[in-house]
Amino acid sequence: MAWEGIRADPDDVVVTVGSQMALDLVTRIYCDPGDVVLAEGPSYVGALGSFAAYQARVVHVAMDAHGLVPSLLRAALETVRPRPKFLYTVPTFHNPAGVTLSVERRAEVLAICRGYGVAVVEDNPYGLLGFSGHTYPALRSLDRDVVYLGSFSKTFAAGLRVGWALVPPAVRDRLVLAAESATLCPPSFTQMLVSRYLAAHDWRSQVKTYTEAYRERRDAMLRALETYLPPGCTWNVPDGGFYVWLTVPEGVDTKAMLPRAVTARVAYASGTGFYADGLGSRQLRLSYCYPSPERITEGVRRLAGVLAAELDVLRTFGNPARPAIGRGPQAPSPSTP
Amino acid sequence: MAWEGIRADPDDVVVTVGSQMALDLVTRIYCDPGDVVLAEGPSYVGALGSFAAYQARVVHVAMDAHGLVPSLLRAALETVRPRPKFLYTVPTFHNPAGVTLSVERRAEVLAICRGYGVAVVEDNPYGLLGFSGHTYPALRSLDRDVVYLGSFSKTFAAGLRVGWALVPPAVRDRLVLAAESATLCPPSFTQMLVSRYLAAHDWRSQVKTYTEAYRERRDAMLRALETYLPPGCTWNVPDGGFYVWLTVPEGVDTKAMLPRAVTARVAYASGTGFYADGLGSRQLRLSYCYPSPERITEGVRRLAGVLAAELDVLRTFGNPARPAIGRGPQAPSPSTP
Repeated sequence: MAWEGIRADPDDVVVTVGSQMALDLVTRIYCDPGDVVLAEGPSYVGALGSFAAYQARVVHVAMDAHGLVPSLLRAALETVRPRPKFLYTVPTFHNPAGVTLSVERRAEVLAICRGYGVAVVEDNPYGLLGFSGHTYPALRSLDRDVVYLGSFSKTFAAGLRVGWALVPPAVRDRLVLAAESATLCPPSFTQMLVSRYLAAHDWRSQVKTYTEAYRERRDAMLRALETYLPPGCTWNVPDGGFYVWLTVPEGVDTKAMLPRAVTARVAYASGTGFYADGLGSRQLRLSYCYPSPERITEGVRRLAGVLAAELDVLRTFGNPARPAIGRGPQAPSPSTP
Repeated sequence: MAWEGIRADPDDVVVTVGSQMALDLVTRIYCDPGDVVLAEGPSYVGALGSFAAYQARVVHVAMDAHGLVPSLLRAALETVRPRPKFLYTVPTFHNPAGVTLSVERRAEVLAICRGYGVAVVEDNPYGLLGFSGHTYPALRSLDRDVVYLGSFSKTFAAGLRVGWALVPPAVRDRLVLAAESATLCPPSFTQMLVSRYLAAHDWRSQVKTYTEAYRERRDAMLRALETYLPPGCTWNVPDGGFYVWLTVPEGVDTKAMLPRAVTARVAYASGTGFYADGLGSRQLRLSYCYPSPERITEGVRRLAGVLAAELDVLRTFGNPARPAIGRGPQAPSPSTP
């Protein structure tokens, strides 16, 4: 697969039960209790779960519209002790933030980590799901020491749970051993399904079809957000992947609001789940991958109603929400690599 | 499934990627590095792998023809420190020893563990594969606090990797959390296959068909062992499951002999893999589950040739093998529960 620039030897691939299992095993190999992992803030909730399972401490590095901020990464590596074991990153179409690490920053992030002797774990389930008709060079395409996690869940079928890790030879043997003790092997049946699918079907066209559907749904979500949301909300414009990361007006607690949203028959992932350090109470993640455009529109309309009621309550009880003046999408992530 | 006497609430079942994953997660939940696990000697090699992955120390408790010896279990619980976290046991059609824990001993083993406050993990992939037309009461059927591991790999299809843990409510929530961080969830596709198979097919008849094939293969193996093996070899007569556990004449090292066996185009699992403490060099495991009776016979004939050559070399180089006088099957495990 040259779309993202990766050249790999089949011997360096370890198939896993979804990339979650690869992430879990990589954490098992690298981390003892008390060790530190760097991750974007916010970061993928399933990764935070694996890090917690091995009692690793997560230090977040903030992102802007161009992804992970290199100067903040360098500052973290200077100051955090014990020295982090690895940087966990979703550079392309980030979950949950929806942003993409710019091409310029990719080499910089790798150089910084190399300089501090810190491994890089690149989680890339969304890389082929870009809306601009191009892909970004994977970090692994720039540095063969990167531990790369791939998945068929977003490009073929989530229900098969087939993922893989592409790892340097020094890591591979330990990963194979850990995988054997974890599940003996992934189901051969699902691997055979994937293998036959890739060999016999025009999977690239299928990915294109999926991506077109996702773009249509993203557009529906963005239109609905602009139409319905009250002032004081900001969000990103994702260039691929599944997620819009929404910041609500000050005073609203997205975790506390969730039960009221569910009562109004709309759900989201509250932002606190994506931070290991308690941040995220003003953020929430919206996913547009599955519902139809009509249902997305209706969902955002309901969410806007819940938010408006929340703001009413805040005003009534003397805790003014002080919405920011502006409203609307933030600067989009760069649309050309 | 009342065949083995278990009554279970669906809420207490956690589906896993094979029972290996359940075993791995149970170990993760119960054990910190340096903790002790009790296991039969010999014990399932995949279990020893999981225990090692979590840096748990294994203390073996010996078996006789009726399975785990209760007095030795009590002695271990009296003397081993730190106190073991759990007893890992394959009570029925043991892998690799092929023996079955007698019904009388089942209650005794449970009472001993309860008395010392030590959990019991029952691994039961072979329980329905008995050759005498009956099943044994699962330990879980006698004590609802037993952590029970089940599998469809031996009764339906190994390539699906669908297993499960049936656990007490106090363990369930921790197991679900650990399972989510390990793989998010097992493949829904393979679970749906199993579900449809159980609902739509006469799976009990299928198990009976499998079992008849296994019995035929066991018989072929036993006949070949009696026909071809040199004096000084002893083995069990398994009443179900897949394995014959063979003890070779003194002086023969089964691990050292394995490359010569492979050269003669026959393979086995050397006994040392089934012990965490270096024992097993005079033992090896033979599996009769997959090859045809004809190939089993030919395999044993080749193995006998390799053994004879090994004994020749030992005699020639003045390291006499001193074979025991007798040869043949040991007392079989009890044929009625």
